[in-house]
Amino acid sequence: MTDLSTAKGVYVIAATPFTETGEIDYASMDRMIDFYGEAGCTGITILGMMGEAPKLEAEESIAIVRRFTERAKDMPIIVGVSAPGFAAMRALSKASMDMGAAGVMVAPPPSLRTDDQIVGYYNQAIEAIGSDVPVVIQDYPLVLSVVMTPEVIRRIVENLPSCVMLKHEDWPGLEKISTLRRFESEGKMRHISILCGNGGLFLDFEMGRGADGAMTGYAFPDMLVDTVRLSQEGNVEAAHDLFDAHLPLIRYEQQPGIGLAARKYVMMRRGILKSDAQRKPGASLSAKGKAEIEFLLGRLARKDKRAAL
Amino acid sequence: MTDLSTAKGVYVIAATPFTETGEIDYASMDRMIDFYGEAGCTGITILGMMGEAPKLEAEESIAIVRRFTERAKDMPIIVGVSAPGFAAMRALSKASMDMGAAGVMVAPPPSLRTDDQIVGYYNQAIEAIGSDVPVVIQDYPLVLSVVMTPEVIRRIVENLPSCVMLKHEDWPGLEKISTLRRFESEGKMRHISILCGNGGLFLDFEMGRGADGAMTGYAFPDMLVDTVRLSQEGNVEAAHDLFDAHLPLIRYEQQPGIGLAARKYVMMRRGILKSDAQRKPGASLSAKGKAEIEFLLGRLARKDKRAAL
Amino acid sequence: MTDLSTAKGVYVIAATPFTETGEIDYASMDRMIDFYGEAGCTGITILGMMGEAPKLEAEESIAIVRRFTERAKDMPIIVGVSAPGFAAMRALSKASMDMGAAGVMVAPPPSLRTDDQIVGYYNQAIEAIGSDVPVVIQDYPLVLSVVMTPEVIRRIVENLPSCVMLKHEDWPGLEKISTLRRFESEGKMRHISILCGNGGLFLDFEMGRGADGAMTGYAFPDMLVDTVRLSQEGNVEAAHDLFDAHLPLIRYEQQPGIGLAARKYVMMRRGILKSDAQRKPGASLSAKGKAEIEFLLGRLARKDKRAAL
Amino acid sequence: MTDLSTAKGVYVIAATPFTETGEIDYASMDRMIDFYGEAGCTGITILGMMGEAPKLEAEESIAIVRRFTERAKDMPIIVGVSAPGFAAMRALSKASMDMGAAGVMVAPPPSLRTDDQIVGYYNQAIEAIGSDVPVVIQDYPLVLSVVMTPEVIRRIVENLPSCVMLKHEDWPGLEKISTLRRFESEGKMRHISILCGNGGLFLDFEMGRGADGAMTGYAFPDMLVDTVRLSQEGNVEAAHDLFDAHLPLIRYEQQPGIGLAARKYVMMRRGILKSDAQRKPGASLSAKGKAEIEFLLGRLARKDKRAAL
Repeated sequence: MTDLSTAKGVYVIAATPFTETGEIDYASMDRMIDFYGEAGCTGITILGMMGEAPKLEAEESIAIVRRFTERAKDMPIIVGVSAPGFAAMRALSKASMDMGAAGVMVAPPPSLRTDDQIVGYYNQAIEAIGSDVPVVIQDYPLVLSVVMTPEVIRRIVENLPSCVMLKHEDWPGLEKISTLRRFESEGKMRHISILCGNGGLFLDFEMGRGADGAMTGYAFPDMLVDTVRLSQEGNVEAAHDLFDAHLPLIRYEQQPGIGLAARKYVMMRRGILKSDAQRKPGASLSAKGKAEIEFLLGRLARKDKRAAL
Repeated sequence: MTDLSTAKGVYVIAATPFTETGEIDYASMDRMIDFYGEAGCTGITILGMMGEAPKLEAEESIAIVRRFTERAKDMPIIVGVSAPGFAAMRALSKASMDMGAAGVMVAPPPSLRTDDQIVGYYNQAIEAIGSDVPVVIQDYPLVLSVVMTPEVIRRIVENLPSCVMLKHEDWPGLEKISTLRRFESEGKMRHISILCGNGGLFLDFEMGRGADGAMTGYAFPDMLVDTVRLSQEGNVEAAHDLFDAHLPLIRYEQQPGIGLAARKYVMMRRGILKSDAQRKPGASLSAKGKAEIEFLLGRLARKDKRAAL
Repeated sequence: MTDLSTAKGVYVIAATPFTETGEIDYASMDRMIDFYGEAGCTGITILGMMGEAPKLEAEESIAIVRRFTERAKDMPIIVGVSAPGFAAMRALSKASMDMGAAGVMVAPPPSLRTDDQIVGYYNQAIEAIGSDVPVVIQDYPLVLSVVMTPEVIRRIVENLPSCVMLKHEDWPGLEKISTLRRFESEGKMRHISILCGNGGLFLDFEMGRGADGAMTGYAFPDMLVDTVRLSQEGNVEAAHDLFDAHLPLIRYEQQPGIGLAARKYVMMRRGILKSDAQRKPGASLSAKGKAEIEFLLGRLARKDKRAAL
Repeated sequence: MTDLSTAKGVYVIAATPFTETGEIDYASMDRMIDFYGEAGCTGITILGMMGEAPKLEAEESIAIVRRFTERAKDMPIIVGVSAPGFAAMRALSKASMDMGAAGVMVAPPPSLRTDDQIVGYYNQAIEAIGSDVPVVIQDYPLVLSVVMTPEVIRRIVENLPSCVMLKHEDWPGLEKISTLRRFESEGKMRHISILCGNGGLFLDFEMGRGADGAMTGYAFPDMLVDTVRLSQEGNVEAAHDLFDAHLPLIRYEQQPGIGLAARKYVMMRRGILKSDAQRKPGASLSAKGKAEIEFLLGRLARKDKRAAL
């Protein structure tokens, strides 16, 4: 079994491909899984927010887990199982692990406020899904409005051995990574893998703070892989050069709502997805928006030929 | 088929009975359904927030809908189908209507802000579930943080013929009922049934503003039935006398979180539920809290012998 | 100097009387102060949310503090000094204490989330206003969306000797009072005065949990005084009888927005205020709303002749 | 008097310089004002959120307005007057206009939800401050949690002739600019100036959508001036080249909380401010954070020599 606590590299957040009429597009899904592998991704995270998980029926979610775990043979699959209640969370976790997932990701519900509520929630979640299931903590205050201090994360990690990874997308969040790594070096916290989300917007500096890589869905995961690798090799200027070339597009994709439309559009242009359709409710790009993305791709292609489409 | 747009009386919000170990307690459920009928309820609403719907697995929800629709022969069943996405909403709606439900209830997701977003959401929801399914609009800003003006409700009702009922639990909300009824009298809005929630805390005055009754889960639905009937008969002082006698307990049940524990406790004390257990996560009553409820029941019993347990 | 940490009874939250044209009505203010004294209030809290403090200019706030401290000779005055920044908080605190106020009340800003943020905020606030100024902590999650656990309150009280009183208006909040008093009995927390707000909606049971009284603005503070006294004398049934008679009106006043209009209307009908005007922005009562209040007063007068107006 | 409705270019959001001990640093303020002029800014906006306005006492705010209006002779000054109540808003507006300000900026309070509430708020605000005072509407949902549709902005602009400018910082917001400009071209809305905030993060594309320039506080306003000018000259590629060179730093400054610390640090390094101190409460940069900014400046200097410090 994969030890997620020592994971490094890129766990790409997978989009869910749909046809124009809203059906799951499995041909595109297969192509996407293969592409992720060729791009050098270490693993894949599915059924996250960007995967339009809440728009799926329960059986569809199961079918998607099956497809990924079967096809992505060498890449561990992490399944987003956040749910309003523990019954659904347990059901999806069990089914996912039975199909060969490497772990599950749990985000705190937006109603949580106090430190104890957050810690208590993870205790209850893990009681529900079983302490043998590796868990990724999702820390995303901008969207979830739940603020976890480093100390709260430390308490969760120390209480719950099955919590092995942090999807870090606090904003700002650089100091948080530094503090967590300091906790580890001081012996106050077990080592966990820290993979950074938030569209990759701060990945260039997150690596220098002690992150192990990225967990995000930027339409050029191959660039994320290179940036992480260059950083880990100590090739800091090259990492920044590559990252900076992509930053205008990363920034464009990082728009709430419309960002997923942009991301799917680029993935369609790269030949991975057949359609950039989202299930409703979903934002769509205007003609002007598409032109802006084409303009960005054109400029990017001068520095990174993968953008020459 | 029941015409929900002219519904009057009490559509009780059903609790979901659980055993101490968290299993659905169907024996208690049957007893509860029968009790609701004997109490004079017009209909039953299931799988709402107070029904701990988010804590159920998809198949459990289906099983509960089946149990209610089969047993509650004379009472129309409304099923809460609010969901993070339309796929799950459509699935549960279809299954519910196939099993004989009278309609479904849809709450707006907390992310909605502008008037157009709210109107657009109901358009999309009804496109998803089908325009032949009677819909109850749930208007509950305190919990959902979505504020619907009377004008927004008017737009939804005028756009969407299948919207036939309002679960009104804005707070404060008396003027809203008056405004909606004025819209109707001015010919600006089709007539819909307005049933009041919010624990019944303002039912005494809501009736005078034009409400058709209650849709809430107070542990004495028989009292709600009497209050609505007395109001409709023009027996205003008697309605207030009865209501005021219950107000200390209504108020006690209206506490966020702990309120459901209080409600289930009283229903257990009345012999309807075998256990007051909630599925996790759920608040539980302290010994002091139980003593306070017993004290309230004791005082209430002097004025309403149904509370002499 | 008043030791607020041992305060008992009722610190009434004062409304700010305005004329129909929005000027401060000092004649009504004087009458109100005198009335509060005759009603048996222990102290007065001014410039709170219900006092429309944010609608005042800085000089007006100062003038109001002066009026209250000069006229209310035997009643300690607590001044709400919550402000978006510490400069304004310090300025109003200093001016208030110089004029003879007994202490200040500080609410946490709505942006605070984590336990440490809340504790840190009170540290900074008291550094700004000076550790010699007695401070009342306002705990009002429903409006402020800041949730303080009992442990957070304990940390603040233990860190900061000048924090001497809690305006308790968490909802639900009965267990919180019990927990804080348990902390005290276990020697984990210094004794502070706990006065309950939230419109008085749970005062009947809050006293039994260990509260010292009320700090709220219900239009019959004389009833609050009696309820607190009866509870402290151990006359529990009589306390509940009186409270329950008022509960329909207490509940009516507890509506966000419109509640202050109802409160000022009753105070006008009692002859205390000349006008029920609020400064803009403010909600106003409809004719129907006024009729409902008159109806409530009429019913109340049968049990408490102070409501026979 | 300046006609703000036709304003173009950069209205820089001014920081408020403080000394290490928290006093206002007028020497730095003078240097900053002069620098803004030399940088080619069209105007200056003061006492906004980034100006730490809530941390100032009322008299300090007045003194700052005086300093800016006296020294910045050729640049119109817009004063942020957002306040919890209209009394304070009116007082600061009147004082500012009397001292020669060109207009005021009003943000909606976070409690507003419905379209009518937002429109009503601006009606009341302008009734309070007087319809002769030019008003900038601040549209900043990310921080204020108030969402204004283009239609709401249209209604405000059509209702209130004194509303002459939009500080646009919705996110995402490109389509909003396009929609507002379409309203104008269709004759549905009077022309107003649209200046873009949000740290400038999308300025490169906002210009192409019809924005007139920027209103933000990025530490290189001289770059903003050039980007706007290049865009207006149709020199699109050059505008993007310059913008993209700065994007890594723009992005770094755009972190909530820590962003202002980064901005003041860069302004200190550029010799404009003597200290990067903020009044409490305020976030400060770690050594690592400063090193990251230095690294960014170093890389930027290769492309823009203004960053060679």
